[in-house]
Amino acid sequence: MREHISGQYDNELGTIRAHLTEMAGLVERQLEHAGTALLQQAPEHADAVIRIDADVNRLEVVIDDLCSHIIVRRQPTASDLRFIMVTLKAITDLERIGDECSRIAKMATDLASRERVRERFTEFDDMTAGVTGMLRDALHAFFRVDTESAADVIARDKGVDRSYKAVMARLIPKMEQEPEAIRALLDLVWCARSLERIGDHAKNIAEYVIYLGHGQDIRHQPLETKQREAQNEPRSS
Amino acid sequence: MREHISGQYDNELGTIRAHLTEMAGLVERQLEHAGTALLQQAPEHADAVIRIDADVNRLEVVIDDLCSHIIVRRQPTASDLRFIMVTLKAITDLERIGDECSRIAKMATDLASRERVRERFTEFDDMTAGVTGMLRDALHAFFRVDTESAADVIARDKGVDRSYKAVMARLIPKMEQEPEAIRALLDLVWCARSLERIGDHAKNIAEYVIYLGHGQDIRHQPLETKQREAQNEPRSS
Repeated sequence: MREHISGQYDNELGTIRAHLTEMAGLVERQLEHAGTALLQQAPEHADAVIRIDADVNRLEVVIDDLCSHIIVRRQPTASDLRFIMVTLKAITDLERIGDECSRIAKMATDLASRERVRERFTEFDDMTAGVTGMLRDALHAFFRVDTESAADVIARDKGVDRSYKAVMARLIPKMEQEPEAIRALLDLVWCARSLERIGDHAKNIAEYVIYLGHGQDIRHQPLETKQREAQNEPRSS
Repeated sequence: MREHISGQYDNELGTIRAHLTEMAGLVERQLEHAGTALLQQAPEHADAVIRIDADVNRLEVVIDDLCSHIIVRRQPTASDLRFIMVTLKAITDLERIGDECSRIAKMATDLASRERVRERFTEFDDMTAGVTGMLRDALHAFFRVDTESAADVIARDKGVDRSYKAVMARLIPKMEQEPEAIRALLDLVWCARSLERIGDHAKNIAEYVIYLGHGQDIRHQPLETKQREAQNEPRSS
């Protein structure tokens, strides 16, 4: 009987992990489509982002329920509980990345219907590549509880923020010079902001990995502390 | 001994509730200062927002720790656990409201240093009053588990979204007509966006109240379902 219950418990944990993997994969696909929609002004990719979003939202609710259920019914061990707590946080960030991808998709569709902005803002290539890599590596670090890779993801957010500032510093004077292109330029401003936010969410996921590995909350701490923390031996649980 | 442990447990729950009340009060003050900083272009109020933000961030970490601790050590009852789970979610929204207030504060400071935008956008008065009321009532509903008030808060978010669209529909043509005022107008665009997001976070908090009262997750459901749900009898736990 005891073994039977423990088997159910393992099954439930496995189900949470499987759903989380599925949700993470969907959000990565959303980001890929959103990036293509933006960089290549390809509205069919924008449609794909919106289509996937319903599944992402559904999975957030399902995983949330499973986590609450396992905490109430199964009294998880401390280390399993830590995994469940960060899962609850990570799904919120994943869902918000999905929302930001949907915003980018809508802007990309808008942009495709407007007169094309002639100037090419290569900062968007950098930002898109930057946040796509951050999300991929944050998720990879999450599933392997790899605190060193997680610290690396956290450090890379500064680069995304730099690209964001750089593109804003070009977009704003452009708006002043070409007021007739303001709506298209404003769409680009929103896209830049959304990409920057996606970087923040990927950084959040990386921070949960450090907590998962060391049992310490490093949010709202300076970067040096985060890096030092990542180099420590994981605390046993 | 059993009584002693149960007394500690009640104390810990009480501490979480007290910290949450404190954090909620601080975020409400941040929003008040941010609104004044924006509407009256009063930079001293902007400073107050930023000052309070450090305490809000600290409280988020403290409450998060207390919640994790009580779940691991005390095996809370199903209804206490539901309260703890929504507290964990609510503090994330509160912290993000604090961040949006800080963004508004920075924009208000920027605006005060620029040439004043002559036109008055009264939509900001509506939005500020709207989200301030939503946050106050969402928090009030949260602490009393008042699902009817919560449903009312959820419904009011549509009004904030309408004001947001209305102000954007005025700001964008204005940017086209007065390119020399673009930076100031863009600051106002960011403020509008932040206010709209604060409305979303207040709505999230109201949705947790419905879950707390009925044990059902209503996120990503149409408004009618949310209202119907709020009118049902609370599910016993």
